[in-house]
Amino acid sequence: MHTGEHSTAEVVISLIEYDETQLAERTLTDIEECYESADGQQVAWINVDGLHDVDLIEKMGNHFKIHPLAMEDVVSTMQRPKVEEYDGHFFVIMRMLDFDPESEVLTSEQVSLIVGERFLFSFQERQGDVFEPVRLRLRTAKGKIRGRGADYLAYSLIDAVVDHYFRILEMVGDRIEELEDDVLTNMAPASMHRIHHLRREMLILRRAVWPLREAIGLLYRGEVRMVQEETRLFLRDAHDHCVQVIDTVETLREVLTGSMELYMSGVSNRLNEVMKVLTVISTIFIPLSFFAGVYGMNFEYMPELGFRWGYPILMAAMAAAAAGMLWYFRRKGWF
Amino acid sequence: MHTGEHSTAEVVISLIEYDETQLAERTLTDIEECYESADGQQVAWINVDGLHDVDLIEKMGNHFKIHPLAMEDVVSTMQRPKVEEYDGHFFVIMRMLDFDPESEVLTSEQVSLIVGERFLFSFQERQGDVFEPVRLRLRTAKGKIRGRGADYLAYSLIDAVVDHYFRILEMVGDRIEELEDDVLTNMAPASMHRIHHLRREMLILRRAVWPLREAIGLLYRGEVRMVQEETRLFLRDAHDHCVQVIDTVETLREVLTGSMELYMSGVSNRLNEVMKVLTVISTIFIPLSFFAGVYGMNFEYMPELGFRWGYPILMAAMAAAAAGMLWYFRRKGWF
Amino acid sequence: MHTGEHSTAEVVISLIEYDETQLAERTLTDIEECYESADGQQVAWINVDGLHDVDLIEKMGNHFKIHPLAMEDVVSTMQRPKVEEYDGHFFVIMRMLDFDPESEVLTSEQVSLIVGERFLFSFQERQGDVFEPVRLRLRTAKGKIRGRGADYLAYSLIDAVVDHYFRILEMVGDRIEELEDDVLTNMAPASMHRIHHLRREMLILRRAVWPLREAIGLLYRGEVRMVQEETRLFLRDAHDHCVQVIDTVETLREVLTGSMELYMSGVSNRLNEVMKVLTVISTIFIPLSFFAGVYGMNFEYMPELGFRWGYPILMAAMAAAAAGMLWYFRRKGWF
Amino acid sequence: MHTGEHSTAEVVISLIEYDETQLAERTLTDIEECYESADGQQVAWINVDGLHDVDLIEKMGNHFKIHPLAMEDVVSTMQRPKVEEYDGHFFVIMRMLDFDPESEVLTSEQVSLIVGERFLFSFQERQGDVFEPVRLRLRTAKGKIRGRGADYLAYSLIDAVVDHYFRILEMVGDRIEELEDDVLTNMAPASMHRIHHLRREMLILRRAVWPLREAIGLLYRGEVRMVQEETRLFLRDAHDHCVQVIDTVETLREVLTGSMELYMSGVSNRLNEVMKVLTVISTIFIPLSFFAGVYGMNFEYMPELGFRWGYPILMAAMAAAAAGMLWYFRRKGWF
Amino acid sequence: MHTGEHSTAEVVISLIEYDETQLAERTLTDIEECYESADGQQVAWINVDGLHDVDLIEKMGNHFKIHPLAMEDVVSTMQRPKVEEYDGHFFVIMRMLDFDPESEVLTSEQVSLIVGERFLFSFQERQGDVFEPVRLRLRTAKGKIRGRGADYLAYSLIDAVVDHYFRILEMVGDRIEELEDDVLTNMAPASMHRIHHLRREMLILRRAVWPLREAIGLLYRGEVRMVQEETRLFLRDAHDHCVQVIDTVETLREVLTGSMELYMSGVSNRLNEVMKVLTVISTIFIPLSFFAGVYGMNFEYMPELGFRWGYPILMAAMAAAAAGMLWYFRRKGWF
Repeated sequence: MHTGEHSTAEVVISLIEYDETQLAERTLTDIEECYESADGQQVAWINVDGLHDVDLIEKMGNHFKIHPLAMEDVVSTMQRPKVEEYDGHFFVIMRMLDFDPESEVLTSEQVSLIVGERFLFSFQERQGDVFEPVRLRLRTAKGKIRGRGADYLAYSLIDAVVDHYFRILEMVGDRIEELEDDVLTNMAPASMHRIHHLRREMLILRRAVWPLREAIGLLYRGEVRMVQEETRLFLRDAHDHCVQVIDTVETLREVLTGSMELYMSGVSNRLNEVMKVLTVISTIFIPLSFFAGVYGMNFEYMPELGFRWGYPILMAAMAAAAAGMLWYFRRKGWF
Repeated sequence: MHTGEHSTAEVVISLIEYDETQLAERTLTDIEECYESADGQQVAWINVDGLHDVDLIEKMGNHFKIHPLAMEDVVSTMQRPKVEEYDGHFFVIMRMLDFDPESEVLTSEQVSLIVGERFLFSFQERQGDVFEPVRLRLRTAKGKIRGRGADYLAYSLIDAVVDHYFRILEMVGDRIEELEDDVLTNMAPASMHRIHHLRREMLILRRAVWPLREAIGLLYRGEVRMVQEETRLFLRDAHDHCVQVIDTVETLREVLTGSMELYMSGVSNRLNEVMKVLTVISTIFIPLSFFAGVYGMNFEYMPELGFRWGYPILMAAMAAAAAGMLWYFRRKGWF
Repeated sequence: MHTGEHSTAEVVISLIEYDETQLAERTLTDIEECYESADGQQVAWINVDGLHDVDLIEKMGNHFKIHPLAMEDVVSTMQRPKVEEYDGHFFVIMRMLDFDPESEVLTSEQVSLIVGERFLFSFQERQGDVFEPVRLRLRTAKGKIRGRGADYLAYSLIDAVVDHYFRILEMVGDRIEELEDDVLTNMAPASMHRIHHLRREMLILRRAVWPLREAIGLLYRGEVRMVQEETRLFLRDAHDHCVQVIDTVETLREVLTGSMELYMSGVSNRLNEVMKVLTVISTIFIPLSFFAGVYGMNFEYMPELGFRWGYPILMAAMAAAAAGMLWYFRRKGWF
Repeated sequence: MHTGEHSTAEVVISLIEYDETQLAERTLTDIEECYESADGQQVAWINVDGLHDVDLIEKMGNHFKIHPLAMEDVVSTMQRPKVEEYDGHFFVIMRMLDFDPESEVLTSEQVSLIVGERFLFSFQERQGDVFEPVRLRLRTAKGKIRGRGADYLAYSLIDAVVDHYFRILEMVGDRIEELEDDVLTNMAPASMHRIHHLRREMLILRRAVWPLREAIGLLYRGEVRMVQEETRLFLRDAHDHCVQVIDTVETLREVLTGSMELYMSGVSNRLNEVMKVLTVISTIFIPLSFFAGVYGMNFEYMPELGFRWGYPILMAAMAAAAAGMLWYFRRKGWF
Repeated sequence: MHTGEHSTAEVVISLIEYDETQLAERTLTDIEECYESADGQQVAWINVDGLHDVDLIEKMGNHFKIHPLAMEDVVSTMQRPKVEEYDGHFFVIMRMLDFDPESEVLTSEQVSLIVGERFLFSFQERQGDVFEPVRLRLRTAKGKIRGRGADYLAYSLIDAVVDHYFRILEMVGDRIEELEDDVLTNMAPASMHRIHHLRREMLILRRAVWPLREAIGLLYRGEVRMVQEETRLFLRDAHDHCVQVIDTVETLREVLTGSMELYMSGVSNRLNEVMKVLTVISTIFIPLSFFAGVYGMNFEYMPELGFRWGYPILMAAMAAAAAGMLWYFRRKGWF
């Protein structure tokens, strides 16, 4: 049963067949067209965009004798990244992420690989992926990728996914830098929401990369027999990259926590500042108003009212009191 | 000794006997009626709803030579999930949870399985469970469940419990989304209580699933001999699901913590806003009131009072001062 | 050297000797009276209440060839729970706790067991313990405890101590429920102190049960040779109980932390509410007072004062302004 | 290169030579005087107070063929506690702490031991140490310490250092109790600084005892061959003490964190209380002042002013309004 | 592909060739000039400052048959510290840090070592490093460094980098001490930013030293065969230093967290103080002003106004009320 959103988009199946000397690309209309290629001497990479046509996937699974649990995992799109070995093939799940720097939204898509001796099936939820550089290297035969087996192709796809994490982290890092400047200068209440939002996205990234690291670890330590010695050295490199992604995610999370504390302390400081203004003004004028009130009383016997210098003396005394209080507040550093 | 709430509801015992070709369902009036079935060639699933009839359970335990410690654990309903192996049977405890999205209340019920070669006893505290899909698959012989032994039935029940955790997490996730919107828009003081409440429920879920993961781990790694090779592959899948539940619980907990911080910062911002209004109003009118008070004094010699333009000039000066302060506060971004 | 508080209470030594058919209880006046029993064929449980008579304990230690480090640990009452094996006996330290629900005070007492083939010495700091159910089962020969050796008696005592932790946790749990209600309704400043106090008590409980879990683990995994196979199964059960106590303690600690956050947010909310009242009242009346002050000035030329409708118009304008501000504040949700 | 503070105090070298029957104490003027003793049949304990005379230490190191890295560690006084084994000797670094309860200052001093078959060198930064009880036991031959080798002497010195940690923890614990009372009653701003200060000291203690625990673990598990079987049992005891110190440090740190939270909540409560007083007073008198201001206006046509009962009625209305508001505030629990 | 900032500075290649008797230093214009030296009997240390000339590095890599993944890591400058072994050489990446105490900025530079039997290549991003003491020891033949192989030279360079961490920690420690004084006395809002900034730098340092510790661990435990037994002892020492750096970083981070809490509590205390002043002044003068206002009303029938002693009595009553309130506030400890 397919558990992702139901889509009406057509399922697109593309095939790249290659060996050291030749490469052919085709778009298939039915999965059956690839059966011959997958059993041939060349390496066949069959990429399926769209998982909602469950029949197609079941047909293919039955033909290649893929374990039913693996086929179930392909179509249920909330799986954790993992590697599993079966007879004649191994199975990789990973999460391909994308980040829109405008809306700061991180989108996540499940990519599954079924890797045999000379074939590799990749399943994606939607069209559009991060594998273009791999296709380019295949076409131009750069990096000798064409001389190696399907296991090296699997490494290349995994590496492309992990590499894209770095690009996402860079974009997120830039947004966080901006955000910090924002916090320091504007204290906009929206900052808090953005911090909260970015922390959630870091959680998503962490959930994608932690289990992927473990899965690649299984591959490079040789616990999956189909992976060749030479490819393992490259997988160790991809593993190191995963560790670095995790490190960076943790650092960004700590930086976001720090920004939040900065923001909270900024809010407190601002409240303090507001309260100081209120207190200075009130403390100066409330007592003065009282004395003005006193000499506004209508008692018949208030001798001061008749004094010739009463008014100027009172005003001078008030000015002196105000000046004294200002001096006191300034000494306390209140403004 | 039974440690749960004492119930007056009747104990309901139901029996499903099946093999690849046949299936029979019965409701029993006494536990003794199942003795013959449990020793037969078919797989017998005996489900007991209600644990307060300790005699019945003791009788059954004695007949099947269940270890007294296991029988004790069946009736004392605060056990941690676990798996234990005894001679001729193994014993599983898990917690079946349910969530009411209206009241946001999570209820917990202990389910114990005693699994022999060809029999499976399940004990529940109350009627009503999450095993209906399993019964359906048995009746319709879907997924070939009928061709496998009692160990596969045990897997199916465990999987049904874990699957229901996902449904609970989805419901809780929806409530948290709502709650976050609430926090961002309303700042209702009740939000804090709801956050606190949901965090406690996440604690309950975590306490149910962590030890269950370990228990399933024991089963799939083959440390319980009665579990067949083929079933283990399925148990590994259930184990993966447990890990995913734990992941999601941790994420939801972090999101709840984030919401709480959002809420607290919202409260601080609101206080700031209130204080700014107070400060702006007070800072403008308290000094003006003082000057009005001054010219309300009754001194005999206050020459300004006799000036023809005294009143308009004072009013104009006051208006100018107020405007100046407003300009100052706006420049500071206070409103 | 005895490190607990010095007590003047008499040391009470009691002896229970039993086998499957007989049981005798005695109170001893001197430790020497038990020598014969401890070397006999029956199981002898010698319980010593009071550790300040170091001579007595030394005499007993020398007679039974207990390792001096063990004897030192018996009388120095701040030990961590542990299990140690020596020639011919093993040594258990645990902490017996008690909780007074009235004063919410948790008291802690060190209990040491020295367990030989057919004797068990238990040392307590004070009279009064949680072993009464064990004595009862011995007297009534319930649960077949009398047919087993001193190692099973040791298990029974350990289990009695762990069981009492559950009862304490229940009482503390109830107090925490009450406390939470208190926080939600009263916001009494004392809540914070009670939360702090209960968290300290949870620390004490955690420090008692964590190392005890490890110690029981050593016993049930068979690393102490004197413990029989059959007893180990029971010890595994006690181990599970310890794990459950730890789980519950951690949950209660998280709940207490949650309560504290609830309390702090409640305090903030309350401050907000107070400030809103102040701001609404001040913002309405301070400007109005200013206008009243203006028309209280004594300028000779204030034409408005002579207007026939001046007073009613001003009052109406003021009422309108007040109503406008109230409307504005209500729209902002301030009251 | 010596990295501690440069001192002008003289280096003091003292020697204690003993076996089961004899003991001699001497103060040496040069390190060379001990060469003969260290190679003799008796155990020789050479204690050096003062590390700034690097030549002396180098000379001694060369004579006894101590590894240059060990000699470097002796004089560079910021080392982490550790144990290292070399040919013919092992090397221990630990930190001897002292706490002045008056100033609440924790001082730290590096103590290194070089332990051979029959000699033990101890190096301290300053005069004054916690080894007096060990010297006393040597002189009075108590605890049979004189019958054992240099490894047991090393244990005794380590144990003396760990024992002193307990005394420090007791003193710190007392200070924390006082501090908590202070927080609950006075809310002095200085409390926060003291909490912060004590937490830093707990960090120092933790950094001293964590690695020491590991180091003792190496010794008692027999990974250093020179330590005899019998001594290991005592080292296990010292190891247990380290664990207990760590436990207590963690508890005190949690208590300090709790005190800080108590303090912060106390500050918030106090602010609340202050604001309530301000709000009650302002809310009662600001509106009343307004009405007094109204009847202080000088409009010619204010009919109320001429009413016979105007003044008493107004006063009564004001008193009633004030009483009403007081009742309202009391009902809200504001005072 | 080089991933660091593109630089126009020239790449500087320097060569030090030495054995026990001789040492020669040269600056090379092309990498090819060192080929002969690297294959000779002397140890050759080739240091390259500047990584933007990728051709040069590739040429060198091809000549010495360095694995392409290692060469890639040399030029991509965001690598985590690590050690990797290849045929005939091992590869070390570390981060050389520098701290400017004026601007409190921590700069980070990647240093890679390729260590063969008798050659060592070091690659730095920029000119200027912390290796001057090593060069000095080479020139003066101090510490017998010249008698050992390239592995000991690698140790010396690693040790120089770790040693510089200590110097950075000392500088940062001093800045933190200053900062704490600042927080206690000034409460400058900038303190919070500085705390935040220094915490980020501690994160950078931690990310540099954690993986380096692991990497050195691999070297000293002998998992890289080219490292000689004797050098391993020194590497264990460098490993200990890494652990100490980590310890100190953690302590400084906790101290910074403590400072932040101090700051936040200081802000709260200050707000409290401000509010108390406002409350004391308002609470005294607002009621008094009301009474002055009352006797400023213009009612015709206000008998008190005609009393001979009305005015003095009222003033005395007001003074008494003010004094009473002051006494009340002082008793409450508000000023």
